[in-house]
Amino acid sequence: MIKQKIYGLIEKGSHGSKLNLRFDYVVMILIVLNIIAMILETIPNINDPLDHFFRIFEIASIIFFSIEYILRIYVSNLTHPSSNRIKSALKFIFSAYGLIDLFAIAPFYLPFIIKIDLRFIRILRIFRFMRILKINRYSNSINIIWTVIKEKKSELAITGFITILVLLTSSFLMYYIEGKAQPNKFPNIISSLWWAVATLTTVGYGDVYPVTGLGKFISALIAICGIGLVALPTGIISSGFMKKINKPNTSTNKCPHCGKEIS
Amino acid sequence: MIKQKIYGLIEKGSHGSKLNLRFDYVVMILIVLNIIAMILETIPNINDPLDHFFRIFEIASIIFFSIEYILRIYVSNLTHPSSNRIKSALKFIFSAYGLIDLFAIAPFYLPFIIKIDLRFIRILRIFRFMRILKINRYSNSINIIWTVIKEKKSELAITGFITILVLLTSSFLMYYIEGKAQPNKFPNIISSLWWAVATLTTVGYGDVYPVTGLGKFISALIAICGIGLVALPTGIISSGFMKKINKPNTSTNKCPHCGKEIS
Amino acid sequence: MIKQKIYGLIEKGSHGSKLNLRFDYVVMILIVLNIIAMILETIPNINDPLDHFFRIFEIASIIFFSIEYILRIYVSNLTHPSSNRIKSALKFIFSAYGLIDLFAIAPFYLPFIIKIDLRFIRILRIFRFMRILKINRYSNSINIIWTVIKEKKSELAITGFITILVLLTSSFLMYYIEGKAQPNKFPNIISSLWWAVATLTTVGYGDVYPVTGLGKFISALIAICGIGLVALPTGIISSGFMKKINKPNTSTNKCPHCGKEIS
Amino acid sequence: MIKQKIYGLIEKGSHGSKLNLRFDYVVMILIVLNIIAMILETIPNINDPLDHFFRIFEIASIIFFSIEYILRIYVSNLTHPSSNRIKSALKFIFSAYGLIDLFAIAPFYLPFIIKIDLRFIRILRIFRFMRILKINRYSNSINIIWTVIKEKKSELAITGFITILVLLTSSFLMYYIEGKAQPNKFPNIISSLWWAVATLTTVGYGDVYPVTGLGKFISALIAICGIGLVALPTGIISSGFMKKINKPNTSTNKCPHCGKEIS
Repeated sequence: MIKQKIYGLIEKGSHGSKLNLRFDYVVMILIVLNIIAMILETIPNINDPLDHFFRIFEIASIIFFSIEYILRIYVSNLTHPSSNRIKSALKFIFSAYGLIDLFAIAPFYLPFIIKIDLRFIRILRIFRFMRILKINRYSNSINIIWTVIKEKKSELAITGFITILVLLTSSFLMYYIEGKAQPNKFPNIISSLWWAVATLTTVGYGDVYPVTGLGKFISALIAICGIGLVALPTGIISSGFMKKINKPNTSTNKCPHCGKEIS
Repeated sequence: MIKQKIYGLIEKGSHGSKLNLRFDYVVMILIVLNIIAMILETIPNINDPLDHFFRIFEIASIIFFSIEYILRIYVSNLTHPSSNRIKSALKFIFSAYGLIDLFAIAPFYLPFIIKIDLRFIRILRIFRFMRILKINRYSNSINIIWTVIKEKKSELAITGFITILVLLTSSFLMYYIEGKAQPNKFPNIISSLWWAVATLTTVGYGDVYPVTGLGKFISALIAICGIGLVALPTGIISSGFMKKINKPNTSTNKCPHCGKEIS
Repeated sequence: MIKQKIYGLIEKGSHGSKLNLRFDYVVMILIVLNIIAMILETIPNINDPLDHFFRIFEIASIIFFSIEYILRIYVSNLTHPSSNRIKSALKFIFSAYGLIDLFAIAPFYLPFIIKIDLRFIRILRIFRFMRILKINRYSNSINIIWTVIKEKKSELAITGFITILVLLTSSFLMYYIEGKAQPNKFPNIISSLWWAVATLTTVGYGDVYPVTGLGKFISALIAICGIGLVALPTGIISSGFMKKINKPNTSTNKCPHCGKEIS
Repeated sequence: MIKQKIYGLIEKGSHGSKLNLRFDYVVMILIVLNIIAMILETIPNINDPLDHFFRIFEIASIIFFSIEYILRIYVSNLTHPSSNRIKSALKFIFSAYGLIDLFAIAPFYLPFIIKIDLRFIRILRIFRFMRILKINRYSNSINIIWTVIKEKKSELAITGFITILVLLTSSFLMYYIEGKAQPNKFPNIISSLWWAVATLTTVGYGDVYPVTGLGKFISALIAICGIGLVALPTGIISSGFMKKINKPNTSTNKCPHCGKEIS
């Protein structure tokens, strides 16, 4: 059956078939070329002489991705089995991968319907890359990383919560301290927050920095907090990875009382 | 009894009651709105037309928080049991949460008594958020993080001590080295310390940096020390979290969903 | 036999002989002096009066390295045993160490053949230092580090992959957001990528930074992602090192004579 | 005996005596005051009116430290037992703590002998603080940190070695790439090294940054390497701390009285 073959070509490969793997590589290369084209288009020196070529390449890509999208809908009753065809198609269309595939082509068709420039949405095409994660070798690793982050969710949330507390408190203080000395740098608390993030993450662009003694003192405290901001999540994640290694076979436990999963 | 109901509404919820959880969410949302209002008030374009609205919202918030504070004092003999009512009330008022609640409303009432502008203290309202940590799901995580930091207290103190030694020594050296070349950037050791913190934490705003050869050499050393400053506490905290995982049976396990203990 | 002695002098030492160790130290010191000379040559104040001396030192070094290279080819049938002499010589020449040795001297001889200035390739001489890694004390450590990185290859690749996704997506967004406000700072996506790398790695030179509100918001998000970018690989590598410690006897052993792995 | 009492006062305390602990705290406070004085002396606004006071305080400190130093020599046959008095005194004088104590007072006496300004050496007084590390609570922690670093010495050395390779190679490349575009920023490889350190450690002051495309590309690579530079040592140190926790009884114990190892 042709449907089976199409299915084998565009979907099954992630679990072994060489033909599909080759198809996947073709898609990957096409996406890489698309991204390179999108980058080069923004450089006038390169875009001006090659404008015509970029347009043709874009249209060719869209045709390819559109056909692939239609084929994926066509085989959706195999990939997303359900009671009837339409349900399967909808299941695929509204799945994470389905939406990514749609966003990769939609920016081209939409301007025909409504008058808006959505060309920058084309970047979402990059997320089509995430299909790569389904390849066995990587899917295992992404699973480990994902499980670790999920298991440490609430510890990481607490770190995030403390970070927000520190950011907001220091922004308020800084606004009242530096606002008078540098009214153009700290005109409001939003600007103050920008300074707080740049300091806590130790980026330190140097566009905004305190000049008063007290301001510098608070800035120094925040910068030192920034080290804790790195140390805490790193420690949490490290211990998560370690746990995975020490007992990799014991999967998710369930609470004997309510039956929900416990990390 | 009405007291029991009030108690159930404002305090008990963190241990299961749906009604209280809903009350807690209302308080959280109110605080978030308060913080957003405080931020927007500092932006003239937004504040000028909405000044009236912000005032009303502030007064409404204060009324809400004040009533809540009085109710908490009213039920304090349930939350902070002691030999008599006044002792309970005082116990609550001087507890960590009680003081946070007081600081959240005090800046509004104080100007009526003494003539000072304490509006910036309103930011302390943000710490009311810490009640969230009492919610079971998070209280477990915060406990783990807290125990790890407490257990590793003296190792972390040593790291802090070494950091201070490095900061002070490099500040002194830098003052004598760069002070002559850039008298306006390194006029005294306090300024030198500001440079040292910015370098060691790798913030590097770029407002102060060495220009002499020797100064750059010391700066490079400090910057490299900065890596150790991250690596040491991270390693210490990682090992702390690992220890917690290796013997988790000594801590009480609770189902994060239903809150019951699991043997 | 003289060949055995030469072999003992230039190759065997890493496994004990004192004579060879001394030879290795001579080579190390010569390389260090070479690098210092290369650095000083670029400072006119130092180079002008010492130009003559630097030339003589360079020629002396080349003579030393050339003789050593010829000797290594001469003893290649001992170091790289094979069916015949020429095969051994080629085996050595195209080995990693052989190519490093060749690159260390080639920049001197090539200009006699073709007219190009390859002086900057001399820096490759620095990689001759990697012979130090063959010394027993270090070869064990480098093995551990290498094995850990190799074992965690696909987890680290996923981190790299996510990093690239974040970098590209944020560059695209930033180009469309900041491009209008600062056309000279964000003229194209390549420039935008430069900003993205500087922010994600928290370097923050301060030559490019957002000025619009939305741009600052995205910049803050990327800077915070930068913490995850440190936390994830650190956690992965930490767990890798831990695994090595927990079962150190399963590590790969190497033959002390030929350096090949023994099962 | 008075000598026993002096010994108990200035030395023994770290192992329990309350009297000595109090003496230690007096010394600590004096050092802190000394450091504060040294910092304030560099601020003209503060120094000018208080100049007289600072001089008196300095002389009083010197007298105190000098008497303490003489007393330590006096009891050196108890703290550093040996065959005769002079040997004990020399043993103390040339011990790490003895030298620190000497450097704390020497800058005051030296100008009487030779005509040099050694006032900046006074900062070494800060290292007197390290006596704090002998206090039991901290001596244990410092031991753990020290043992971990010592055990991981060669792994950390390899990381340092790779770092130097990366720094030097990138500096050479950057000099040849950016040297032509920005001759005043990259005039020689020393300047290039300054950029390399600022980038690899992610300090990024912003005084030197690449402007050419190729320069930016290399800079981005180095900045990303900077993440590895944090991840590798952190992972190594984490695993070191973990090992200590997993088998804490195998660690070397030291006699709290003489400092020798106990099996």
